[in-house]
Amino acid sequence: MFKAAICTIGDEILIGQIIDTNSAHIARKLNETGIKIQSMHSISDDNSEIKSKLAELLEQNDIVITTGGLGPTKDDITKAALYELSGSTHYVECEAQTQINKKLLQARGLELLDINKEQSMLPNKAEVILNHKGTAPIMVFRFEKSLLYSLPGVPFEALAALDDVIKDIKEHFQTENISHRVIMTYGMAESALAKRLDAWESALPANAHLAYLPNPLTGVRLRLSIYGGKQEDNAAELDELVASLEQIIPDAIYAYGDDNLEHCIGELLLTRSNTLSIAESCTGGKLSSLFTAMPGCSSYYLGSVTSYANEVKSGVLGVNPETISRFGAVSRECVEEMAMGVRRICGSDFSLATSGIAGPGGATADKSVGLVWVAAASEKGVISTSFQFNNDRIRNIERFSSSALYFLLKKIKSDYNLL
Amino acid sequence: MFKAAICTIGDEILIGQIIDTNSAHIARKLNETGIKIQSMHSISDDNSEIKSKLAELLEQNDIVITTGGLGPTKDDITKAALYELSGSTHYVECEAQTQINKKLLQARGLELLDINKEQSMLPNKAEVILNHKGTAPIMVFRFEKSLLYSLPGVPFEALAALDDVIKDIKEHFQTENISHRVIMTYGMAESALAKRLDAWESALPANAHLAYLPNPLTGVRLRLSIYGGKQEDNAAELDELVASLEQIIPDAIYAYGDDNLEHCIGELLLTRSNTLSIAESCTGGKLSSLFTAMPGCSSYYLGSVTSYANEVKSGVLGVNPETISRFGAVSRECVEEMAMGVRRICGSDFSLATSGIAGPGGATADKSVGLVWVAAASEKGVISTSFQFNNDRIRNIERFSSSALYFLLKKIKSDYNLL
Repeated sequence: MFKAAICTIGDEILIGQIIDTNSAHIARKLNETGIKIQSMHSISDDNSEIKSKLAELLEQNDIVITTGGLGPTKDDITKAALYELSGSTHYVECEAQTQINKKLLQARGLELLDINKEQSMLPNKAEVILNHKGTAPIMVFRFEKSLLYSLPGVPFEALAALDDVIKDIKEHFQTENISHRVIMTYGMAESALAKRLDAWESALPANAHLAYLPNPLTGVRLRLSIYGGKQEDNAAELDELVASLEQIIPDAIYAYGDDNLEHCIGELLLTRSNTLSIAESCTGGKLSSLFTAMPGCSSYYLGSVTSYANEVKSGVLGVNPETISRFGAVSRECVEEMAMGVRRICGSDFSLATSGIAGPGGATADKSVGLVWVAAASEKGVISTSFQFNNDRIRNIERFSSSALYFLLKKIKSDYNLL
Repeated sequence: MFKAAICTIGDEILIGQIIDTNSAHIARKLNETGIKIQSMHSISDDNSEIKSKLAELLEQNDIVITTGGLGPTKDDITKAALYELSGSTHYVECEAQTQINKKLLQARGLELLDINKEQSMLPNKAEVILNHKGTAPIMVFRFEKSLLYSLPGVPFEALAALDDVIKDIKEHFQTENISHRVIMTYGMAESALAKRLDAWESALPANAHLAYLPNPLTGVRLRLSIYGGKQEDNAAELDELVASLEQIIPDAIYAYGDDNLEHCIGELLLTRSNTLSIAESCTGGKLSSLFTAMPGCSSYYLGSVTSYANEVKSGVLGVNPETISRFGAVSRECVEEMAMGVRRICGSDFSLATSGIAGPGGATADKSVGLVWVAAASEKGVISTSFQFNNDRIRNIERFSSSALYFLLKKIKSDYNLL
């Protein structure tokens, strides 16, 4: 098994101005293709530091991936350091990148300046992977024992180049064939899932591995991997394993492949041209912003009311003030009236409502921080339930949101007779 | 100047399952106290890897800070590796931590188990900094030439321990005295600010430094630092520098000290017991979720309507359908009616409204992706303006939100005669 390392370059990382997300995204993508990262490093925009650290990493690894330091300004010095490290003797223009850069700048109404032209000039020892999202091409240096890939620091440029980088790696190194299936689950904690799957997991063939990747907004993402073997055989084996997994946790699985709850809901609503509205109290706009983060949501998402004050619950959503005074705003009665109210005023097919105590304040004698009531309504009626979480405010809002989404997803499936 | 490095330990980082936020948070906090991080590293939960990497870092640095691998499960092996690395001969119980752990678990209705007791058993060469937020104490190892601090991997536990760690560092190393002032600005890009401040910045005394920290949701945070000197002298010098800075960019500054726009708005509304409601189209719930993320916002924040569909703009907010058909939903006329509508139905003193094109779809012949109309209303009337951004959907939503917040902040200040 060959060794790989990631090195991000930039003073802004070392002073804590930005969080390095590139390393995690690159590692995850490489990991899914069977390339394991041994170590990650962040160093400053310093010529001798870059050269010595990269020389060290190239000595210890087969593959080194760097990001950062390729911009047009004077603190971007990765290219100059790699020129020296690779023993290059002159710069060569990459004309294909110059053409891309012209088009990129044109699209923004800008002309190609000298500093942009500079970006297409590469050390003669570098091979090029074109950057279609930005002006700095990806450089590949083939050292005697190891390969170095220099990617831009802008996350979406670095990520966009990764497929080409992986393809290049696979041409030069015998990577193990690796096949994955992702299964999205909700409603069971990682520990509960692990317990339920214990026997099944122990009986997995030696070449198979299950990874648990929990996330408060999407639930636990299961990744089933098969190492080695032929692509077709792996696919058949994965089909069988997923089918047997489904038997054990049928209720928890909501999607096959990378997905999230709001997207599943949207796709389902689209199949019947149905629409959705939301009434939020404790989630405070989070649910609405999850839907509106997705392009194209306007095909099914009509809107929401964040009824933070009781007066808005009554005045806008039409919740009976007596319901609130008698049962409290955090109650089955109130949240059901919220769901029915928002469905009525927005004229949607489905609706979802939340009312809870995100904390740190707001607890009462019989209702503690982390309690949330959730209701989902349609022409077939309204249903509701409660959950009790135990986190800080931000995390509670996330858990409230995802449990409400899951509740709605089940309601829609039930209405559509898909359960 | 002494050298410091951070090393985060955990397989979940190397496979890209989690993004390492600890390194950035620790670096930022240390940086603000004059301690500069030379490099960051992430390594796996592997005994020999931990020992060799930490030995190497201790050789190259005066201070090494690690996070992770202190949990109670079998993949947490940092403590065992440090036991060996430090040449410890036995484990000693830290009784004070045991007492804390009892209380922490009691609060969650749990009893102290053997694996929790294990967490208070420390290598005899370790000194202890108590962990008040979790069950794994912070260990300090004083090697011949350098210090090693082992922090838990859970971010809020690591951060909570940092003040004690910094205090300990300052007792052992002569750190330079460093004083900061943070100034929050909005409405000018980093490059525009830098240009306007060019002469002022060039005239700064040699011991002063200005850093630009841009953020789409809060604007550019300026950090003015003075190195060396006495605390009192620095304070006086900073007062003078900030006063002169204020002369140059009076319009752009909205707060002194770390702050954000929604918090400034909330504080201002609280002074007059005024209330706020919001009508969102393109921002889709983001503005509401920014306010509701803050504990205590219910004192002034009544709620919002996300009127994604035009029918909701008319049906719930009372926007005249003719306004929409004549001027479009993304128009001054529509957004002003949205602001007045939400203010009326929620009964708030102030209101804010947004309508724009977040993209990627939705552009028309005369309105392109990134255009947003913003309106703010009060009893003194409604005002509105537009902005044109040029980003992807998520970033556009962030920029729409912060520019709307800044517009509202100015409206409130104007109404209160504070401008």
